[in-house]
This record gives sequence, C-alpha cells and structure tokens, in this order.
Amino acid sequence: MPILTRDEFAYIDWIRKRTPAHPRVRIGPGDDTAAIQVSGDRSLLITTDMLLEGSCFLLDQAGPRSVGRKAMAVNLSDIAAMAGIPTAAVVSVGLPRQNGRAIAEQLHEGLHEMAKMFDVPIVGGDTNSWTGGLVVTVTLLGEATAKGPVTRAGAKPGDWIFVTGPLGGSILGKHLDFVPRVKEALALHQWVDLHAMIDISDGLSADLHHLCEESRCGAVIRSESVPITASARILAERTGRTPLQHALTDGEDFELIFTVAPEDGQRLLDSQPIEGIQLVHLGEMISAGYWIEENGERKTLEVGGYVHHLESGFPESLPIV
Amino acid sequence: MPILTRDEFAYIDWIRKRTPAHPRVRIGPGDDTAAIQVSGDRSLLITTDMLLEGSCFLLDQAGPRSVGRKAMAVNLSDIAAMAGIPTAAVVSVGLPRQNGRAIAEQLHEGLHEMAKMFDVPIVGGDTNSWTGGLVVTVTLLGEATAKGPVTRAGAKPGDWIFVTGPLGGSILGKHLDFVPRVKEALALHQWVDLHAMIDISDGLSADLHHLCEESRCGAVIRSESVPITASARILAERTGRTPLQHALTDGEDFELIFTVAPEDGQRLLDSQPIEGIQLVHLGEMISAGYWIEENGERKTLEVGGYVHHLESGFPESLPIV
Repeated sequence: MPILTRDEFAYIDWIRKRTPAHPRVRIGPGDDTAAIQVSGDRSLLITTDMLLEGSCFLLDQAGPRSVGRKAMAVNLSDIAAMAGIPTAAVVSVGLPRQNGRAIAEQLHEGLHEMAKMFDVPIVGGDTNSWTGGLVVTVTLLGEATAKGPVTRAGAKPGDWIFVTGPLGGSILGKHLDFVPRVKEALALHQWVDLHAMIDISDGLSADLHHLCEESRCGAVIRSESVPITASARILAERTGRTPLQHALTDGEDFELIFTVAPEDGQRLLDSQPIEGIQLVHLGEMISAGYWIEENGERKTLEVGGYVHHLESGFPESLPIV
Repeated sequence: MPILTRDEFAYIDWIRKRTPAHPRVRIGPGDDTAAIQVSGDRSLLITTDMLLEGSCFLLDQAGPRSVGRKAMAVNLSDIAAMAGIPTAAVVSVGLPRQNGRAIAEQLHEGLHEMAKMFDVPIVGGDTNSWTGGLVVTVTLLGEATAKGPVTRAGAKPGDWIFVTGPLGGSILGKHLDFVPRVKEALALHQWVDLHAMIDISDGLSADLHHLCEESRCGAVIRSESVPITASARILAERTGRTPLQHALTDGEDFELIFTVAPEDGQRLLDSQPIEGIQLVHLGEMISAGYWIEENGERKTLEVGGYVHHLESGFPESLPIV
C-alpha cells in the first residue's frame, strides 16, 4: 500500500481517536456521511466538503457557476453513497476581493441549480471576502430511508461488486459536470439489499479499498469488466498510461460502488432495473487480499487513486466524511 | 444608515429571493440559524460560519488552537441566540502547506475542547491542504426546545431590551476566548417568555438594528445603561474614541440581546436568576425610530458596527445565518 494511504488512514485514525462514542452518533467519521439520532427513529445524515481554488478547481477555467454546481454535487454524491434523501444545505463562502460580488452571484446560481434538481433548499450560510482565493464549503443534510443508511462497512465475502457507470478521465470535464447518483441509489436500495456502498471520489481502486477496509474484507475484480469512458481513452493517448489505469485510478467519477448478495446481483444483471444506467458487475468480495484478474491471472490491485500531494506530510485532499 | 448596511441587506435580500419557500424550511436565511423540519415536531437548527486567516484571525498571534476554539464557539453562539441545544458538528478545513499537519492537530484540539464543553460530538468533516491560508468552516446542528426557537422577529413595541454582559474592546482578547451563552439562553428561555434574541457579532448597535428590522420595530436605549468592559476603556485610551462608542460598535462580544414583556423584564431585574451573569436592561422596543438617550436627549443610534471593508462592493464579513 503506498505511503499516501497510510498517511490518510493515520490521520483519519487520529481524528477517530479524538471522537469519543456519543449516544447521539450512529455513524461517526470515516464513512461517506455521518449519521446522528434526532427525535424519531430515522437517522439524520450530514456531510460537508470544502472546495479550494487552485487545489480543487481553477476558477478561470471552470467559472464560478460550475464551481457552485460541483460544490453542491459532491455533497449530494455523499448522501447518495448512503442511499439517503438529501433534505437541506448550508453554504459558507470565502470570496476573493476582486469581483467578489459577481463571483458570489454566479456561484450561488450554480449552487441553486444543482440543489433544485434534488429539491434541496439552501437554508443559510456565511459569506466573507478576503485576500485569498475562492473557498466554498457546502454542508448537506439528508435523511436515511426506512431501510436505514448504507455504510461502507457491510460488505461480506462472496458479495458481488457493482459500479453504476464507466470510469476514468473525469478531469476532461465530468469532474465539474456530473449528476450525483441520488435517485439511482434510492431506486437500488428499494430493489435489493445493499450491503455496502461508496461513491468514487478518489478513484475505483482507492475507494473500493476504503470499502474493503471498513468491511474488513478483501476484493477481486476482473480487468475486462471495468467499464471505461471515452474520456479515459482520450486521456490515455496523451499520458501514455492505459485507459484501464485511468479507469482504476482517476478520481472524481462520482459513480457508486456497491456490493450485494449473489442472488441480488443476478437479479440486477437480469433486469437492469435502473433507468438510464447500465449496472456493471466488476468482481467479488473475498475474505482477504486485494486483486485484479487480467487474462485469468491475479495481480495486486494497486491503491493508486487520485493524486495526493504530500508536501509537509499532509494529503492534498482528505475526505474524512 | 451607512452604505455598508444597505449593501449587506441588499445581498441578504438577493439570497432570500433565491430561496423559495419550501415545506421543510421553518426559518430560512436571515436569522442566527435556520430551522428545518425533520421527523417529529421539534425544529432542527443549523448554522455555519467560516473563519479565514488574515480576515477573521491572525494565525501567528492567535495560534491554531484558539482558532479552533473560536470556530466552534461562534457557531455555538448562534445556537444560543435561538435558545437551542447544540447537538452535533462537522468541520471543514483548508490547511496551508507549511506545517499543515501540526496546524491541523492543534486546530482540532481547540475545536474539541470547545465542543466538549457543550457535549457536542464532532461527527465528520473534510480536510484539504492548499497554497492559501488557513480556512475553517464549522457547521453546527442544534435542537429547539419544546418552547420552540427564539428568532430575531418576535419583538414588540413596549418590550424591554436586555443584554447578558458588558460590551466593547473584544479585539483585546475576548473575540478569541469567550464562552458562548448557550446555558444562559436555555435558562432564560425556561424562566421567561423570550420574544426575540440575537447574539452580538457585529456590535450592539448593528445587531440590535438587525433585530429591529426583522421585528419591524424601532428601539430606544439609554447610554448610561450600556454596560462597558474594562477592555473598551483601555482601547478608548488608544483610539481616542469613547468607551461607550466601543461598547456600541465593536464586534464579537458574543453576548445576547433579547427582548421580553415588561412584567418579565421586571422579574429578571428583581431576581437576576442567571448564575454568573448580570442581566442589564438597556431600553425599550418602540414602533419606529432608532435612538440612544444621552442626558435625557434622544439622538439617532448610528448603525456603525464591526468594520466592513467594501473593496469591490462586497462586505468583509456577512453573516447570513
């Protein structure tokens, strides 16, 4: 396992150790969202993501409206990964002094566009200007369905591993312009018994590995089953890497990886019940090991994932929740 | 009214117009927190604040631990201003590359210290490093009590106006080191019928004005009643302004302003029921006008407040919620 993942887990562990068990907390740091108990039986889901200019987006290239859409969409994707229903958002913004008001208005248009698609009211926020770059933090609330939230921790050896769409090359556009799989996750959750789920923000190999860690399982996937985007093929021509490598390790696809019992997996393949998407059976959960099968041969599946910059020993992007 | 307040209200109005009514939203943008309906009868409160290096704090002077404490405390103060019970927090952080890990750990110590004082679990977050300064966003959830949240909008002409402590000069230390009035607000809410409440982040004159705007009332306060801190007196010697001016317009006191019916006001003065604090009767709500009485003479109470920098037409600090 590369050092970056050790660092990431070390930091998450550090946070977890400082997060004592609390009677209100059903799911703490380490999953796609946290879940807390409010009045009534259902869990309240909460997730937050901060986008930083120059690190998560280039403002000149993306424009504030796309940044707004993305800031809302990445949080919606986390609620999707729990098979939850998004309910309300708050937004905090740090605006550059130059053109602050114009940036704020376009940013909010993007935030509202994406929120409206999922009937999510933006109920409040905090806006400041400063000498630094644009920073946007969205915190999104959601509600678990009556079946409860789907965590990363419920996968079992023998489960079939699925993904909701083709992967790789998101940097060519999809990372800024994607529809989070909220509706698909809710439909799947009704259709089958989802054992574990995660959204792909760090890349298939890294995020499936997170799911394995939390479920204390291993996994084996088949290279010929990994669905590859046209963007991954285009990018591969520029980078000299293979399209498969891009599909395994590029981040920000925002598709969902999930596991189900084989019977449910077969039902999904037979019926392909989710409108507009092709569910792909990638491989199986196993008791230990992390493998990719190519031409019938097992190799270690490298936990590459989204490039983390490690200056001063700190990962570039570390989603705790 | 100075142009900065018109700008501020113009921007809040712009946000409000883009926040359509929604059946889940009980209180939208424009109060100390938003309130949304979850399963059950009680409102869920939510508030968010972003602290930015160089604008909201100087990292070298304050140190990351104090910044962490403050980032949590300003949100607790917003929940206090609704007479709510804080329940859970999430934290997003943008870390400078230099010393990122050490800053992160000290910051989290401060966040946890303050959260622990109020039994608030930090349930998740998002941590990134970037080339910019330190940015911390805390989103805090709370629960309204059975009596419901106390908004800014319930004050009536004839109400007595109170404040929970002395004001001014917080820049000399209190702005980084204060205990939010969560417990005091809950005790008051049990003791009397609170009509309206707000915490002082922008300064007494600016925040009482927010309360007037939302309640569609005016106010008159007595200059000799305004409680003044020792810090305001020390600062006045340096600035040439009067201690009263500092008490009226310095920001970040994080005391509460609230209004009650005269009978309840008299009961509070007679019993001073809140341990450790002296409740001060400042003046009265009136149907219109915004006045300060000095030596029996009414003058306009200027809505000065916390200094907003208006380069590029945007306020420095604009707490929408």
